[in-house]
Amino acid sequence: MDTLRVATCALNVVLLGLLASGRVVQAQPASPSGITSHTSASGGSKKAIQAVLDAQLRAWNRGDIDGFMAGYWNSPEFTYLTNKHVVRGWQAMLDLYRQSFKSPGASAMGNLELLETQITLLGKDAALVWGTYRVTNPDGKQRGGLYTLIMRKFPEGWRTVYDRTSSEPLTN
Amino acid sequence: MDTLRVATCALNVVLLGLLASGRVVQAQPASPSGITSHTSASGGSKKAIQAVLDAQLRAWNRGDIDGFMAGYWNSPEFTYLTNKHVVRGWQAMLDLYRQSFKSPGASAMGNLELLETQITLLGKDAALVWGTYRVTNPDGKQRGGLYTLIMRKFPEGWRTVYDRTSSEPLTN
Repeated sequence: MDTLRVATCALNVVLLGLLASGRVVQAQPASPSGITSHTSASGGSKKAIQAVLDAQLRAWNRGDIDGFMAGYWNSPEFTYLTNKHVVRGWQAMLDLYRQSFKSPGASAMGNLELLETQITLLGKDAALVWGTYRVTNPDGKQRGGLYTLIMRKFPEGWRTVYDRTSSEPLTN
Repeated sequence: MDTLRVATCALNVVLLGLLASGRVVQAQPASPSGITSHTSASGGSKKAIQAVLDAQLRAWNRGDIDGFMAGYWNSPEFTYLTNKHVVRGWQAMLDLYRQSFKSPGASAMGNLELLETQITLLGKDAALVWGTYRVTNPDGKQRGGLYTLIMRKFPEGWRTVYDRTSSEPLTN
């Protein structure tokens, strides 16, 4: 048995280790046999996806909730799952953020980092994006966890249609 | 603000409620504008996906690990994330199950139910499947949580290429 491939320690420990070290894991795109791989366009799609994520990161880190939300599909069908909430709809997610950050700004929202980003194209207009993230508040406290995004390509660009993000305190 | 759409109670409470009641939520497929919806084939694809999930459920409930694993992409690139493990590769997931259930069988593995299954096609050969599940052991103890699957259509049929499943005790 190839037990080396099985990380037998707790996921939180794995995540904490990754988050603490800031280690970036190489993307490992899936290449299913028998499926058109869209090779010629895949590099461009991944760059476009990364650009959307980068723009969201910059928006978050300047305390710009609306800018951050621009990376999400503006639809009642958008789905956002956290440890604590099941949210259906873009507007509901925006409302949740506005409630959470009553005085939006970098000081309230903290500094967001994506420490691992694995992008796997699922055809020419869909992608799986997952990895770990870390938010550092001005007081030094950190939280983070695992995120899983499904992104679709719309006429206006790539947008996240499904976001499942867990959050754990990384420091006390 | 449309706060009604925001489930403000803890996700675990939501999940426990759903799991306890066995409530089945209707699938709400996304229909992004400007993207070919593959409407004519979508019903067939969803049935085919549901059939793979049903076969996995039957396999689990007769204690057949190999049958359950047949629903997963047999590749080193397959990814399985739980609360406790980051597993890369189909063989590694099989090894993990074999370690977890040293005496495989219905009595060890318990009875698995999928209480919600939301299938969203992401093109003609990819799908997002998510919902909640519950496992009941012979002693009555239950565990369950949220699952998120990415499935791809291969020549041999639909297979899960990415599985993120959380697990919490539902009874003590």
